[in-house]
Amino acid sequence: MQLKKLLPIVAAAALLPSLGFAQDEALSADRVNSEMVFIMNTLLFLMGGFLVFFMAAGFCMLETGLVRSKNATMQLVKNVALFSLASVAYFVVGFNLMYPGDGWIVQGWMGGFSMTSLEPVGVGYDDLVDVTYASVGSDFIFQLMFCAATASIVSGAVAERIKLWPFLIFVVILTGLIYPIQASWSWGGGFLSEAGFSDFAGSSIVHSAGGWAALAGVLILGARTGKYGKDGRVTVMPGSNLPLATLGMFILWLGWFGFNGGSQLAMGTVSDVADVSRIFANTNTAAAGGAIAALILTQVLYKKVDLTMVLNGALAGLVSITAEPLAPGLGMATIIGAIGGVIVVFTVPLLDKLKIDDVVGAIPVHLFAGIWGTLAVVLSNSDATIGGQIYGIVAIGVFMFVVSAIVWFILKAVMGIRVSDEDQINGLDTSELGMEAYPEFSNR
Amino acid sequence: MQLKKLLPIVAAAALLPSLGFAQDEALSADRVNSEMVFIMNTLLFLMGGFLVFFMAAGFCMLETGLVRSKNATMQLVKNVALFSLASVAYFVVGFNLMYPGDGWIVQGWMGGFSMTSLEPVGVGYDDLVDVTYASVGSDFIFQLMFCAATASIVSGAVAERIKLWPFLIFVVILTGLIYPIQASWSWGGGFLSEAGFSDFAGSSIVHSAGGWAALAGVLILGARTGKYGKDGRVTVMPGSNLPLATLGMFILWLGWFGFNGGSQLAMGTVSDVADVSRIFANTNTAAAGGAIAALILTQVLYKKVDLTMVLNGALAGLVSITAEPLAPGLGMATIIGAIGGVIVVFTVPLLDKLKIDDVVGAIPVHLFAGIWGTLAVVLSNSDATIGGQIYGIVAIGVFMFVVSAIVWFILKAVMGIRVSDEDQINGLDTSELGMEAYPEFSNR
Amino acid sequence: MQLKKLLPIVAAAALLPSLGFAQDEALSADRVNSEMVFIMNTLLFLMGGFLVFFMAAGFCMLETGLVRSKNATMQLVKNVALFSLASVAYFVVGFNLMYPGDGWIVQGWMGGFSMTSLEPVGVGYDDLVDVTYASVGSDFIFQLMFCAATASIVSGAVAERIKLWPFLIFVVILTGLIYPIQASWSWGGGFLSEAGFSDFAGSSIVHSAGGWAALAGVLILGARTGKYGKDGRVTVMPGSNLPLATLGMFILWLGWFGFNGGSQLAMGTVSDVADVSRIFANTNTAAAGGAIAALILTQVLYKKVDLTMVLNGALAGLVSITAEPLAPGLGMATIIGAIGGVIVVFTVPLLDKLKIDDVVGAIPVHLFAGIWGTLAVVLSNSDATIGGQIYGIVAIGVFMFVVSAIVWFILKAVMGIRVSDEDQINGLDTSELGMEAYPEFSNR
Repeated sequence: MQLKKLLPIVAAAALLPSLGFAQDEALSADRVNSEMVFIMNTLLFLMGGFLVFFMAAGFCMLETGLVRSKNATMQLVKNVALFSLASVAYFVVGFNLMYPGDGWIVQGWMGGFSMTSLEPVGVGYDDLVDVTYASVGSDFIFQLMFCAATASIVSGAVAERIKLWPFLIFVVILTGLIYPIQASWSWGGGFLSEAGFSDFAGSSIVHSAGGWAALAGVLILGARTGKYGKDGRVTVMPGSNLPLATLGMFILWLGWFGFNGGSQLAMGTVSDVADVSRIFANTNTAAAGGAIAALILTQVLYKKVDLTMVLNGALAGLVSITAEPLAPGLGMATIIGAIGGVIVVFTVPLLDKLKIDDVVGAIPVHLFAGIWGTLAVVLSNSDATIGGQIYGIVAIGVFMFVVSAIVWFILKAVMGIRVSDEDQINGLDTSELGMEAYPEFSNR
Repeated sequence: MQLKKLLPIVAAAALLPSLGFAQDEALSADRVNSEMVFIMNTLLFLMGGFLVFFMAAGFCMLETGLVRSKNATMQLVKNVALFSLASVAYFVVGFNLMYPGDGWIVQGWMGGFSMTSLEPVGVGYDDLVDVTYASVGSDFIFQLMFCAATASIVSGAVAERIKLWPFLIFVVILTGLIYPIQASWSWGGGFLSEAGFSDFAGSSIVHSAGGWAALAGVLILGARTGKYGKDGRVTVMPGSNLPLATLGMFILWLGWFGFNGGSQLAMGTVSDVADVSRIFANTNTAAAGGAIAALILTQVLYKKVDLTMVLNGALAGLVSITAEPLAPGLGMATIIGAIGGVIVVFTVPLLDKLKIDDVVGAIPVHLFAGIWGTLAVVLSNSDATIGGQIYGIVAIGVFMFVVSAIVWFILKAVMGIRVSDEDQINGLDTSELGMEAYPEFSNR
Repeated sequence: MQLKKLLPIVAAAALLPSLGFAQDEALSADRVNSEMVFIMNTLLFLMGGFLVFFMAAGFCMLETGLVRSKNATMQLVKNVALFSLASVAYFVVGFNLMYPGDGWIVQGWMGGFSMTSLEPVGVGYDDLVDVTYASVGSDFIFQLMFCAATASIVSGAVAERIKLWPFLIFVVILTGLIYPIQASWSWGGGFLSEAGFSDFAGSSIVHSAGGWAALAGVLILGARTGKYGKDGRVTVMPGSNLPLATLGMFILWLGWFGFNGGSQLAMGTVSDVADVSRIFANTNTAAAGGAIAALILTQVLYKKVDLTMVLNGALAGLVSITAEPLAPGLGMATIIGAIGGVIVVFTVPLLDKLKIDDVVGAIPVHLFAGIWGTLAVVLSNSDATIGGQIYGIVAIGVFMFVVSAIVWFILKAVMGIRVSDEDQINGLDTSELGMEAYPEFSNR
């Protein structure tokens, strides 16, 4: 607390930060080192936490820039609300469900239910939960951000025609139950981790998982009114604010340093911090590779560069490297990312042909590139097998898609999830919220 | 300096970063630990510093998004200028006035006047001002950001009708004198710190203080022309760019990890870094609580979710937890934040009934939720008493309101503070600056 | 990898982060200290890396806000693409060309060609390239961001009339070859470092270098169609989105803490971390000085504050302090920054008189203030001489300008670099990309 700051006057001895040990006993170097490891690991999570937190803003800006202005306020509301609800759902049930320790209900498949408790204020060295790891609070805040990202992925795909409250109820179930159970299989020590499935920072566990939930939603919800004509014509519905979308992409790229770098889970030794550095470098170059691939490919295919493809190409590069950002060299990482960018350029129009209406390209970026990235682990990590990777991809995909679909169906049956055609034409901001995002600008 | 980077050729021994000690004497573990504590504490301030710095951008975007486009350039100018002026005022007088050490003019009430001096370049261990704390430069940069935040709070409340230069003169006085004197009472070791008043990161010392200064300004300045009709009708003047306002809110939320986390003032021991982690987790969940409360409450009260209330709800949650982000558990922190959100939803319309025209809701968010947060300390921190908290709230409130009012009155008498009705109708950007924020967009 | 997280069930001993040493041999305090230095230095680069990365977004928003809306998408594409291409060019050739170690082709003047290799995964203490410095990956990511910034500077100056692909080819050559060769002269241990030239974080090496490349481009490219009439009239072409430009400035200011602070290259000792703190404080106050100077000067000269001058004033303050952010005190740093702001206010109109069409003011901010900052080193750093500084400025200037001009000329001859008058009038977004940035807003 800030009071510590001053001192000579007040009882300084009591207020000053202690050196961590009673001053009258000499420290051992081992103990100092051990404290340093704990502090640095915790710091990695805190830094990763705030960087990945900012991705919530990145998703929000990306999506709001890519919807039409008549639906922009709704997209803002959804993004602020989904992050807030995820924050609460994850501490109430998600975190301990995802990391059950010894408390599995069904061993390796389904954790238990309890609220998150942080370590006590001023916890001492001897009372730490795990002195070789990091503080519970830092771990919680870092993992929460991954959980919330899953919901952000869904938000973009179902934009411009979903009702607010059913979407938010889905978010609570996704972030409180569905994602944590699935993630426990790998990161909580469940059956996938024992099966040799390898997904460093979540190409599948976070990104394709979110993509599957989004795909289920998009299919059950249907396309936006007017998007696909009966004659097979696809109506282009351009994003209303591309600078905002670009800003969102840059914020996501920034946050990804924390997303992948923090997933090293340690930086208290020279080898861990050097590994975090490798991850930073590979993450960056994969994003670059994805953007460049989309840049060149749209020029070649369409004779004009397509900014939204470039943005999604960069994001697909990031998703692709997320399953293994450590092992590749810079050249390999660039190629892995570039292939992610290629996937986006080819699958965005494919979805339109299938009349699957994904407003922001979330399914190509997170689901398709996420699967690619998960498979690409075998290119550089000799511990991974193609069989193990496919096993994980399928297990996660089936679970996420089926359970999400069930929830979407129930929400559809109980309260309806789709905004009426008329309200869509007027815009969700007017019909659902009564508040325009740009009341003075729009010329429509 | 970057030259260090190279090496074999040039005299590497002289250029390479030294290990902090002459290499020919063995180090003690105590000494290594002591250095580590200093380095980590300093790093906390540097990270807190850049995070809270970014809040200046957050306030700027929030406020600019919430004013009408004809006043947006003015809001941008004010925010860049206020931060710049605060930066200079704080080093010239504010910092040492706030932390007088032994140099009080009136013991515990009024510090002394001197410019900030940083530690010398390459300061050695033995020459450090306080080896158990952190570097002076890092402390300065961190505390400066709090001071500037106070001015940002005022900026939003008085928007759309205040003249530029009187506002900037007020900012210089606020950040150079008023805030530092008030803050010295608690954080500088003054009479409030001795009275047991507890305000960890500034629910009152920063937020309600800024809110009182804003309230004084709003009352003396009067409402925007046309805001309140003689028949009691309130004219809604919607914000022109809600995505920008939402971005601003997210940036503020991000910065708050530094605001509250950095206020632990130490992370060089396992217990300090675990406490910083607790603070991160509680800060986040309080914001979520505030947003969710406003989300649900506006749905219930108005049948439609109100985005600006949700944004201000999140901010009110953050303000509410700021006085005690360490002691509560996650559940308690969520509730404290949620009550902040409730306060916003009920007091924003209340101010309109009282014809107090606060453009962005700064008074509900920073003043009312700040008072709530200061009182809420007693819920989790047994060292705090309701009497001590009220004493601090009142002392800060009376001082900030009265002194601010005096300054506003003098400025009004000497040079006028209010833009004419006609110029308000044309917009401050045209009348005062001759530069439109969106010259190609506005349809008004 | 996240799997580490769990534990009791799986073979925890193998998965948990090791303490960096075999636990059965006691550590020496020297060794612990040495590890700490390496970890903290690396962390400084990682933090500096992500902060300076974000400057890519800052440049992008600044420039996009300052162009007309009909060219905004193009500016977004260029900024995303230039950063991506720089990322690849720098690892393929730039990094090792800039830091040749013993591998110069022409000693002190021209390094060698090889791709960047990172340290191996899980590198051990004894295998580190330089245990007294930092990990290669962190160094690479930090230095890459400086290289990319050089290209961002060019992007703004040549906006609104340059063709996309010639620009991107220039970027590849600039970031892969021109910048790294020039930077090797100082930071790679080349002839300028031996001549006593001092440029801490790159007022000349990055900023004036980028400014010279931009100037060459602007001169060869010519002014925007319609900018300068035959009668000497200058047509004002106001920026379309000033809030976006202001956000960009704030992001750049934020990133500059990493830019200058990270250039200390070390924070593993108390004196290094205290120096980083000094740099943070000086960097901030110089920006403030630049903004305030432009604020007051435009009021005095034009009777109205000019926001774009204030933004560029802050940036010029930052550029000015970059050559020596450590040695000055706060007062001196403020003055150095303020003079940068003054330079901007006087040279922006001067360029217009010379019919040099620099869209965003990049040449005043980065070239002119960069030269000023490089000269200002002698005010506080007694190791620098005015002769040495001028030598560096001239050497860098001649090389950057001449080589850039040659490249621009070749591009002009081979493929053309300028968009036709008609396409400029219609806007590059429509003519070159077929995608509007704000399809629903623009009233032009």
